[in-house]
Amino acid sequence: MSQIRPIRRALLSVSDKTGIVEFAEALHARGIEILSTGGTAKLLEQAGVPVIEVSAHTGQPEIMDGRVKTLHPKIHGGILARRDQDQAVMDEHGIAPIDLVAVNLYPFADTVKKPGCTLEDAIENIDIGGPTMVRAAAKNHRDVTIVVNATDYDRILGELADLDGVTDETRFDLAIRAFEHTAAYDGMIANYFGQRTNDYQAPDRFPRTLNFQLHKKQNLRYGENAHQQAAFYVDPSHQEPSVASSTQLQGKELSFNNIADTDAALECVKSFHEPACVIVKHANPCGVAVGENIFDAYERAFKTDPTSAFGGIIAFNQPLDEKTAHAIINRQFVEVIIAPGASKKAQTIVAAKKNVRLLVTEPFTKRQAQLDFKRVQGGLLVQEIDHGVVADVDLKVVTEVAPTEQQLSDLRFAWKVAKYVKSNAIVYAKDGMTIGVGAGQMSRVYSAKIAGIKAADEGLEVPGSVMASDAFFPFRDGIDAAAAAGIKAIIQPGGSIRDEEIIAAANEHGIAMVFTGMRHFRH
Amino acid sequence: MSQIRPIRRALLSVSDKTGIVEFAEALHARGIEILSTGGTAKLLEQAGVPVIEVSAHTGQPEIMDGRVKTLHPKIHGGILARRDQDQAVMDEHGIAPIDLVAVNLYPFADTVKKPGCTLEDAIENIDIGGPTMVRAAAKNHRDVTIVVNATDYDRILGELADLDGVTDETRFDLAIRAFEHTAAYDGMIANYFGQRTNDYQAPDRFPRTLNFQLHKKQNLRYGENAHQQAAFYVDPSHQEPSVASSTQLQGKELSFNNIADTDAALECVKSFHEPACVIVKHANPCGVAVGENIFDAYERAFKTDPTSAFGGIIAFNQPLDEKTAHAIINRQFVEVIIAPGASKKAQTIVAAKKNVRLLVTEPFTKRQAQLDFKRVQGGLLVQEIDHGVVADVDLKVVTEVAPTEQQLSDLRFAWKVAKYVKSNAIVYAKDGMTIGVGAGQMSRVYSAKIAGIKAADEGLEVPGSVMASDAFFPFRDGIDAAAAAGIKAIIQPGGSIRDEEIIAAANEHGIAMVFTGMRHFRH
Repeated sequence: MSQIRPIRRALLSVSDKTGIVEFAEALHARGIEILSTGGTAKLLEQAGVPVIEVSAHTGQPEIMDGRVKTLHPKIHGGILARRDQDQAVMDEHGIAPIDLVAVNLYPFADTVKKPGCTLEDAIENIDIGGPTMVRAAAKNHRDVTIVVNATDYDRILGELADLDGVTDETRFDLAIRAFEHTAAYDGMIANYFGQRTNDYQAPDRFPRTLNFQLHKKQNLRYGENAHQQAAFYVDPSHQEPSVASSTQLQGKELSFNNIADTDAALECVKSFHEPACVIVKHANPCGVAVGENIFDAYERAFKTDPTSAFGGIIAFNQPLDEKTAHAIINRQFVEVIIAPGASKKAQTIVAAKKNVRLLVTEPFTKRQAQLDFKRVQGGLLVQEIDHGVVADVDLKVVTEVAPTEQQLSDLRFAWKVAKYVKSNAIVYAKDGMTIGVGAGQMSRVYSAKIAGIKAADEGLEVPGSVMASDAFFPFRDGIDAAAAAGIKAIIQPGGSIRDEEIIAAANEHGIAMVFTGMRHFRH
Repeated sequence: MSQIRPIRRALLSVSDKTGIVEFAEALHARGIEILSTGGTAKLLEQAGVPVIEVSAHTGQPEIMDGRVKTLHPKIHGGILARRDQDQAVMDEHGIAPIDLVAVNLYPFADTVKKPGCTLEDAIENIDIGGPTMVRAAAKNHRDVTIVVNATDYDRILGELADLDGVTDETRFDLAIRAFEHTAAYDGMIANYFGQRTNDYQAPDRFPRTLNFQLHKKQNLRYGENAHQQAAFYVDPSHQEPSVASSTQLQGKELSFNNIADTDAALECVKSFHEPACVIVKHANPCGVAVGENIFDAYERAFKTDPTSAFGGIIAFNQPLDEKTAHAIINRQFVEVIIAPGASKKAQTIVAAKKNVRLLVTEPFTKRQAQLDFKRVQGGLLVQEIDHGVVADVDLKVVTEVAPTEQQLSDLRFAWKVAKYVKSNAIVYAKDGMTIGVGAGQMSRVYSAKIAGIKAADEGLEVPGSVMASDAFFPFRDGIDAAAAAGIKAIIQPGGSIRDEEIIAAANEHGIAMVFTGMRHFRH
């Protein structure tokens, strides 16, 4: 049986003023006394809602430019009192119960992002009274309703209308939100201050403690394997369209591995301006192609490695159309299709296969900075996400032969793919299509060999293809293997102590080679 | 020029009583007035340190069993007052400045871990006054010293002795700690409550927001690649010996990739009870062996793939000895050696190569639960770390031929290795040594082929070896490839819809096959 708690007195003091006037009006209409302070009080008064200033309620004027106003026993006794045992002490000290607290905090991260915000401004913006009221009300949620999100006002008003009070379930749920709110708030402050440990002016990129909060999107059936429990968390503040913010239109529930692979496919396909398709299996692209349209791109991406494409994840950088949906559904077993949109007709076609997960994202936007994590036992490696892009002017031809225009185009293509293949990564490509992908090997020459073996097994012609390597060649053997397979042009970072030997090998084979000066390890 | 702030009045109220009496005595000896409350006040009085109870100071008795005691303008005005502009208002309201606040919070996580702790107990333990004082003092660190760690008492006393006050640098540094303390505290509460969204009694494994705080161990030169900034964070509460808690005895600074690879090597080598060596390159074991001693294990691990072992990471499960150190240093280029200890003589030998990073851990302990993370754009996949172990009784022989004792021993060995090889993972092994490792392929049959190719390239004899596969075989081609290479026994999870076909293939080839019922994907 749910316990209902009446609301007789409410304290409203919000940074986010959304809906506060309507909320206050509705509370007032129910005969609820409203305490308020600062900007909120002014706003409510202007709207004609009767309000008692906190200072009038406590008898203690607001002092120190508002630094001390709510930190008073009449406020906190009113919030923290246990209704079933503290009545006598309340009476004795003239403390009136406060049954609802609506307080939220100005996002500290936004404060410090403002141009010209100094450390002093940031400090002045740290709220002391607000979090205390939020925490006190959340602690005493057995008797008090705490609301930190404007989106929860209607829910409270609904219960008041129906039950003349707020239920246990709602008070508890809102108390959790309250602690989530204060945890995030102090986390932001700790991150901001923690970047300034040694020097106020030159903040460190990485704070001395890394504090963060992510929101659960869904529990997963299990993790990478059935004996591991798992869940998927998202960062609601991250704006870039992604697997995290995608919408599932149909299909079975996404698994842990689905999400990881879909992310790999989507992030890779975002690299291309022309219509493109990326097929991923076990975290690696097994077929990538660009084309006149995404149908064409899919047809060619599939050809690279039809065996691996079976049960794969397919990502596009343009909305899924009918023809492409048809081609996929009729040809292959697919786990996930993701694209920035899907036509109604395409959706109907996919619907024929109930299990296929169809995900759509918003149209792609510019890449955003994000911290990348790699978990190790007892710790976390944190780095900027690899958004490195090499401009054409930074490509350096190091061989006697220069790549042709077509080869240069294929080199750029292969380089983009190699960035998303697990290291050591070797990608063979021709005419905007992967010919062979050598992934995840402990020595580079094996990645080169595998790319060749796979191309041969699929009956794809390597001769005339180009090769991309995510890192420099430590020895000439990788170049020799490529030459033997018929590779005509190579793109790689360069920077080996044996570069001269590597360049000589390329020249020996009549291969054109381009250095990027940028490595793309991805493990 | 550093600003020095004098201390005239201090408020002490700590959960962690370590050193508090000595600290209070030293403050008192300097003529500093001490305010205190609750258990701290009692302890100080017993020790003969003159103390003014907070209730005497404010004139407001402690009410509601201590729920409201410090939430008073005399306390918070005293903490928050800007010394350069609030003197008049302080005089008017009889507010005395509080220049030092020593407050810390009982770790909420420990409260809720106590056997029999109910939700009500947990809620009662949420501190409201404490965090408010900590936050107020930290906000006003320009004038106030906040101390939340007993380990900082001496630093403060040192500055008081030398400078008759506390420096800007110290006050700022301690303010950061203060917000780190409150962020962690509310994060713990949000995690605990957030697991109980729907049901008080049956908490969800994963809270609805995941809040955490990690501590920076070091900034790194760069991340996976030179254009990515990076840092290494650790969880100080994690007890299991790991790369995160290891000590570097010598060598160049660890890189991002070093740490990741060292973690992979160390976690793999922990799996073995007998002396073992794991060599990792690009996140994958490229050679693993057990032996009579770690020298023997290293010699055999190295043989699997000397090419990849070049520039690798070498991990042992026993302390590094002179003979083994000598063998490594004389033979190969090595990035990192890690072991649970290293003899003085071994250290001297490694010292001949100044750049080699030698890390030691504490002796290995039992595995601990840990959340594993996989970053995706805009989100985080969270799962329990894969600590799945298959007991011998759960191994199921599914073929006509059963493995021999020696084969069974090799199957167990290969299975342990496969768990740490990136999927799809195939491991060939014989006599407690890897013969070929096929890693990171998009289709399983290629992993099997690569393992065979690598074994052949290194002149290792596959015939008579066993094979482990981290997941089931979707088709019989992987079995046929293994048979062609001379594999005599196979260990794999089973569970394919084609298991019958797979078993028939093994029987056809006279291969013994064992099912584990447990998969070990690792991407």
